[in-house]
Amino acid sequence: MLKRRLFTPGPVPVPSRVRQAMAQPILNHRAADFLPVFERCRKGLQRVFQTESPVVILAASATGAMDSAVSNMLSPGDHALVVRGGKFGERWGEICASYGVRTTCIDVEWGRAVDPAAVERALETAPDIRAVYVTASETSTGVRHPVREIAEVVRRGGDRLLAVDAVTAAGVYDLPMDRWELDVVVSGSQKAFMLPPGLAFIGLSERAQRFMGTATCSRFYFDLGAELKALPKDQTSWTPAVGLLMGLDESLKIILEEQGLEETWARTEELARVTREAMCAIGLELLAPDAPSPATTAVRVPDGVEGPAFRKYLRDELGYTLADGQDSLKGKVFRIAHLGYFDRFDTIAAIAAIEMALIANGHDAPPGEATRLAVELLSK
Amino acid sequence: MLKRRLFTPGPVPVPSRVRQAMAQPILNHRAADFLPVFERCRKGLQRVFQTESPVVILAASATGAMDSAVSNMLSPGDHALVVRGGKFGERWGEICASYGVRTTCIDVEWGRAVDPAAVERALETAPDIRAVYVTASETSTGVRHPVREIAEVVRRGGDRLLAVDAVTAAGVYDLPMDRWELDVVVSGSQKAFMLPPGLAFIGLSERAQRFMGTATCSRFYFDLGAELKALPKDQTSWTPAVGLLMGLDESLKIILEEQGLEETWARTEELARVTREAMCAIGLELLAPDAPSPATTAVRVPDGVEGPAFRKYLRDELGYTLADGQDSLKGKVFRIAHLGYFDRFDTIAAIAAIEMALIANGHDAPPGEATRLAVELLSK
Repeated sequence: MLKRRLFTPGPVPVPSRVRQAMAQPILNHRAADFLPVFERCRKGLQRVFQTESPVVILAASATGAMDSAVSNMLSPGDHALVVRGGKFGERWGEICASYGVRTTCIDVEWGRAVDPAAVERALETAPDIRAVYVTASETSTGVRHPVREIAEVVRRGGDRLLAVDAVTAAGVYDLPMDRWELDVVVSGSQKAFMLPPGLAFIGLSERAQRFMGTATCSRFYFDLGAELKALPKDQTSWTPAVGLLMGLDESLKIILEEQGLEETWARTEELARVTREAMCAIGLELLAPDAPSPATTAVRVPDGVEGPAFRKYLRDELGYTLADGQDSLKGKVFRIAHLGYFDRFDTIAAIAAIEMALIANGHDAPPGEATRLAVELLSK
Repeated sequence: MLKRRLFTPGPVPVPSRVRQAMAQPILNHRAADFLPVFERCRKGLQRVFQTESPVVILAASATGAMDSAVSNMLSPGDHALVVRGGKFGERWGEICASYGVRTTCIDVEWGRAVDPAAVERALETAPDIRAVYVTASETSTGVRHPVREIAEVVRRGGDRLLAVDAVTAAGVYDLPMDRWELDVVVSGSQKAFMLPPGLAFIGLSERAQRFMGTATCSRFYFDLGAELKALPKDQTSWTPAVGLLMGLDESLKIILEEQGLEETWARTEELARVTREAMCAIGLELLAPDAPSPATTAVRVPDGVEGPAFRKYLRDELGYTLADGQDSLKGKVFRIAHLGYFDRFDTIAAIAAIEMALIANGHDAPPGEATRLAVELLSK
């Protein structure tokens, strides 16, 4: 018997209770019994995003919300600043390009966080920059970028928009949209929200709503103005993903009422910290030692171990699915998830599997040492 | 005990087997065990669409696929012909407008089908029309437009694209994409596919793929070119709605292997025909007597009955949720669904509920007569 365990930084496992909620008979999205479900979802999302501003719910994966964060905010020819230090930072640049938005890009080495001073310099050099697009937690590298400090820089001068990819940050750690004055915050269902993919969320500050009034990029399905009109009536412009919303209602109950938001952040942070220490204890190197995100830990495959064979062994012999590196990091790192539906014992067992697979694939380390350390650290 | 029954033309009820499939532990979309699920889905969709061409699967509601059918096919300033005879025909026009596509519109009275000769005249008058956007089954009115005849007209001259909204036609009745030479065919999960909303499907002929090569409308999330590259590898550009795809795998098994596609069409057609006869037998009028779609039947609320009170009674006293009319038909018609997970006994009972609610709200008819007729007709 090979039990399968999913340890990728999205999709994450869906709690059985949430799967049960989605397996209920479907409701019609215009029917009276669905409205309270939708209302709880949109209000719960505001609590997770830490905002009084509306959070729009889209039937799309999170990239759809990122797309809308460009097409609804800017016009062709507008100038945007994009911070790129991984796959998802690059995506902001690709979206801007596809809408004819001019971009200045700050390129950061994969595995490092951007220096807020570089953002400041870029804004000083090009005062016509209307919007800044950043990634809070860069899932491809496991880096946490300093959004708070970037926001301070962006806020210092000019009426500029700050859009944040918080796909693996919202509900993962403290990223207060209102307190830090973030204008656009994007997330998706298959991360901290412990749901299957298919829902995207986008919080919109007053400034963002003002930018929407003048933006002329083409948009239809992702017309956030129409969504904002429908939202207070607990409706969406197009048919919403009703089943996923029934699941979201349940997962928000778990996050907000049973676990608590701060406890969720603390648990995720602890699992990430212990995983980092355990990996280092058996001679492995982290990709992002200086600015680690608690969402996921990217670990370099050690010398002497073949990345693909190691991941195949983990999957086929031990039942563990971990994420590979992306693009130039393919086969060179593996990524362990902490966000979402993982607890101490999931993480301890995953570390055990990683140890076993490393040793079976040629890494020299005392068997069980990383796991022992994880147990020790997580016993406190 | 009030049992709730959903009778709207989408979302339709989701079979318990399909809900169970979606309640399985989530798979990672890049993992080897998900690939066969995806492969079965894309091949099954080709059978439902009756095409050898690829059918792209999007995480979106069907309007997202309609959006992509404009933005990927045309450039701003291009000329398109749009047939409008209901809410969904109008949507094609709105999408074209939002991308700066010039439109000529053929306006058809709500409840009537377009005359193919009108399409022919419009194409003769404006030879620069590059694409024709039509609705196969207009869900807002219950009309079936003559797509086969329209296709013959469109094919007669010029290299024009024919895009068909088949949201409530694919899997509902015979609409062979290849045989009729349709270029773009759009559908969505919550209709004949008996799933919750959240997946959109779009079949793309060779001509459609050629149009994609020159279209310059902005697009990113809905970039069908990128999807077509990923599709043969059983992948999507962005994270797919994994849970819904697991459900689609199961529902396609029901449609294609257990029920059979032609049997599904025949069942839907029979339920629609019997419903029409039963409604007429108690003095009601159909909105679309001349060109009824088997997807849904729109019935005029008879004189002396208040539409909103009638639907409220159906819902609150009898447990039946039926669709209202839309826009100018609000409160004036009600719509009964036939597509998807409905059988003879569901339909007989729904007719009984409609009869009861009509009589309780002032309609004069012998109680049970419509139901009796339905039983008689469905006994054969």
